[in-house]
Amino acid sequence: MGKVSAFIADGMEEVECLSVVDMLRRADINVELVSISGNAWITSSRNVKVGSDVKFEDADFSDSDILFLPGGMPGTKNLYEYKPLCDLLKKQNENGKRIAAICAAPGLVLGQLGLLKGHKATCHPGFEGYLEGAEYTSDGVVTDGNITTSRGVGFAIDLGLELVGLINGGDAKEDLRNKIQYRF
Amino acid sequence: MGKVSAFIADGMEEVECLSVVDMLRRADINVELVSISGNAWITSSRNVKVGSDVKFEDADFSDSDILFLPGGMPGTKNLYEYKPLCDLLKKQNENGKRIAAICAAPGLVLGQLGLLKGHKATCHPGFEGYLEGAEYTSDGVVTDGNITTSRGVGFAIDLGLELVGLINGGDAKEDLRNKIQYRF
Repeated sequence: MGKVSAFIADGMEEVECLSVVDMLRRADINVELVSISGNAWITSSRNVKVGSDVKFEDADFSDSDILFLPGGMPGTKNLYEYKPLCDLLKKQNENGKRIAAICAAPGLVLGQLGLLKGHKATCHPGFEGYLEGAEYTSDGVVTDGNITTSRGVGFAIDLGLELVGLINGGDAKEDLRNKIQYRF
Repeated sequence: MGKVSAFIADGMEEVECLSVVDMLRRADINVELVSISGNAWITSSRNVKVGSDVKFEDADFSDSDILFLPGGMPGTKNLYEYKPLCDLLKKQNENGKRIAAICAAPGLVLGQLGLLKGHKATCHPGFEGYLEGAEYTSDGVVTDGNITTSRGVGFAIDLGLELVGLINGGDAKEDLRNKIQYRF
């Protein structure tokens, strides 16, 4: 049935994160909100307190089909500065498993870790310079190989739908798009 | 600068609520997340824990320009069954001040309280029967007089932008739409 690990840090954009989580859970995909703050809760970039399901240090990622990084500042910076997460992302990529990121995260995390080389990728305008070795596209959402990236909060639901399609296949993405009354 | 009170209950749709809150805070509008659960935290319909800014019993609504109700089940039912909120909504309406609702909330709360009579209104498909005395429209977002309603989570950002426009006027709504990379 698929599992996604969504990494939350103080200063994340809560709507970018929770729109993706919401779409995945509507599609009966197992999502874990994983806190990297050391606390069970984080405070978002718009000052909303959001609870995690598990702390990073207590989580098991061996069965995670997708590792997902929301954007926002300083949330994205906090993700990049958390070495255990960076090591995990590199390992996931070496194993050819999926990674998804939105807004500032494609550049500030995946780009700076060298994980976008040879991939098409998108990001929030202004962060293109961090997409090291990638072929930039201005698309709202793009999947190239094992990497899926999205521009920003205005495409967060679209990113969630994309991940639902990648995990559940078939008509799952379009079925859910219709169900939530989105862009039709 | 405007103030919006957003009412949160166990079982609310967190993305419907937080997308609106996010847009308003980006536009420097004062938003209070008001818990009606008796606790400082609620658990959403997709099982995400969200913190409030204030409990209903401790909040002051005298300067609230807009009272906003997110949807979700059983969140919407919980809102309707909380009498102090229903009394507040009736008072806000009698004073000709603004109310906004999305998804199941236009029907299950505003409709059942008789606050939609003579207004154009929209809601999540399937709840039209609760829009007592309203003229139903299938629009994503509609403002008629002091009442603004929206269809569902697929139009939550649009609802946030609409409220930004109502409070800040001028080009505020379109400026923010461009800034967040939305539907352009």
